[in-house]
Amino acid sequence: MKIKDKLLVAKIGGNIIENNEALDSFLQDFSKVKGPKILIHGGGKSATKLASKLGIKTEMIDGRRITSAENLDIVVMTYAGLLNKTIVSGLQKYNCNALGLTGADANVIVANKRPVQFIDYGYVGDVTTVNKDTLKGFIDLGITPVFCAVTHDTNGQLFNTNADTIASEIASAMSTDYEVALFYCFELKGVLENIEDKDSVIEHIDLEKYSELRDQDVIADGMLPKLKNCFDALHKNVNKVHIANADFIKDNSIKHTTLSL
Amino acid sequence: MKIKDKLLVAKIGGNIIENNEALDSFLQDFSKVKGPKILIHGGGKSATKLASKLGIKTEMIDGRRITSAENLDIVVMTYAGLLNKTIVSGLQKYNCNALGLTGADANVIVANKRPVQFIDYGYVGDVTTVNKDTLKGFIDLGITPVFCAVTHDTNGQLFNTNADTIASEIASAMSTDYEVALFYCFELKGVLENIEDKDSVIEHIDLEKYSELRDQDVIADGMLPKLKNCFDALHKNVNKVHIANADFIKDNSIKHTTLSL
Repeated sequence: MKIKDKLLVAKIGGNIIENNEALDSFLQDFSKVKGPKILIHGGGKSATKLASKLGIKTEMIDGRRITSAENLDIVVMTYAGLLNKTIVSGLQKYNCNALGLTGADANVIVANKRPVQFIDYGYVGDVTTVNKDTLKGFIDLGITPVFCAVTHDTNGQLFNTNADTIASEIASAMSTDYEVALFYCFELKGVLENIEDKDSVIEHIDLEKYSELRDQDVIADGMLPKLKNCFDALHKNVNKVHIANADFIKDNSIKHTTLSL
Repeated sequence: MKIKDKLLVAKIGGNIIENNEALDSFLQDFSKVKGPKILIHGGGKSATKLASKLGIKTEMIDGRRITSAENLDIVVMTYAGLLNKTIVSGLQKYNCNALGLTGADANVIVANKRPVQFIDYGYVGDVTTVNKDTLKGFIDLGITPVFCAVTHDTNGQLFNTNADTIASEIASAMSTDYEVALFYCFELKGVLENIEDKDSVIEHIDLEKYSELRDQDVIADGMLPKLKNCFDALHKNVNKVHIANADFIKDNSIKHTTLSL
């Protein structure tokens, strides 16, 4: 059996992106990681700020943005425009040959409009396909793909899609060809037992612990969907999944959360 | 001597981009062109509109945008975000495997900040390098690159760069490997002798005629820099240069302007 090459799939959240110094420091660290890598970024806070400046209402349900046509425009301007290109040029500065992508670019991520059940999320897409061969083609050219949280339906419609989910789907799809490590990087140290205590990191979460955490209702709202994305990836053969502070990218020994089945 | 493959480099202007039907029709026609192709788009009017909504002043000198830091953000949001991704997803709809790019993406176009002489244009970049091998790598993957008018300096700074110039520079750089045709597509039929008469197309412009036109002061302001870009491309071995209506992409027999040395 051929030994697979390693691939890092890292996702960074809004609190890193919106702090110029924290972002620059992360991008420098990320650029130093050897071997193939893919970056995925969020940016919800910037989108909300721009919407507010333009007098457009932002409606969130369970941390998910209700994406009207005009909110979609804002999402695309912010995620695919300002944030993605700031990150791409920031990586080029450190000689990392970044290529910014939405799912529409080179048709890399296809999604379906989320069906209306109880809530109409608007132009929100659920990922159906990651074109891993195209992504591998970019990586083989020495390129580092940088994804924002926008997908498309191949019929001319763009969608807002959760960045954590995109990271999980990309990591899963690439695991056929690579030994994939998936890092969710944010401002905290990991999954916290007690949100008031920034040091109360749960260092290992397996399926049993995950089930316990869901039942106990102790972890923050936004963390449950993130954990679901982690376990989805593990179920689809991603080798390692970590939730950690952005510094984890340069120092794998710091306290963090490791997920396993 | 090896016969070179043909490459189409087409630029579309703001009046096509900002009309949904005209844009969709152009993208459908463009997607039908066989063989390798590259699209470049402008979008100044959309940027001005967004600036105005945000209460940010737009200052133009000789048709060039004075690009302050906040104007640059607007340019990047509009060109690289909304317009570029609308065009990319619009091409994917017609099975054209488009990939949206700024110059920072995969480091394809490097520029220098325009030096201040009489006017400080702000974050405006003059192209120094087009990385033609990377572009060829994309084309070899079956991809159609779609450029917006944003470049970078490899040191983390994005720039606003004239889309006509980007088209000319790309066409010139690619002419080493391809037999390149460069089309400037817009809402008029070509270069007009009399701007009041939409039918007064000058069908051929060579260097002598170009010199005459510059002296006579008969053609519209924005057209002179466009003509300069055309002749720059011809001097750098681009095979054919045309200024034409967007319909020229599907019907090469319509009345238009052809440039030659």
